[in-house]
Amino acid sequence: MCEAHAYILRNDMEEKLLENVDQIDVEGDEIRMINIFGEQRILKARIKSYNNSDSKILLEAIEWKD
Amino acid sequence: MCEAHAYILRNDMEEKLLENVDQIDVEGDEIRMINIFGEQRILKARIKSYNNSDSKILLEAIEWKD
Repeated sequence: MCEAHAYILRNDMEEKLLENVDQIDVEGDEIRMINIFGEQRILKARIKSYNNSDSKILLEAIEWKD
Repeated sequence: MCEAHAYILRNDMEEKLLENVDQIDVEGDEIRMINIFGEQRILKARIKSYNNSDSKILLEAIEWKD
C-alpha cells in the first residue's frame, strides 16, 4: 500500500478528502484527483505539502462549496 | 520502494530533478523538496501532476537558474 491520502485544510482543520490517491492533475487553480478505486474529486485548491512517509497529501482550499 | 521521483518540465522537456522524494512543501511559488537521502532542492515551480503508479511528480518551472 503505497498510495497517499489527500486531506484538505480549511478553517485550520484537516479533513480527509480522498484515500489511496493514484493521480493528481493541476490546471490553474483546479485540482483533479483520482484514486485507485476510480473515485474522483475536482476542486479549487492548491497543493500545500506532500509527505511520502506519512502517505499524506495536504491541499489548501481556494474555494469550497458546502 | 514507494517513493516518487520529481521531474521538472522546461522547454517541453522533462528533466529528473530529485529521486526518492520524501517531503514536498509549497510556500507561494517556492517548492522545497527533500528525499530519503536528505538531499534537498528548492526552486520556483508549480506542481503540475502526481502519479503514484508511475512514481512521478511533475513540476513546471516558474523560474530557473542554470
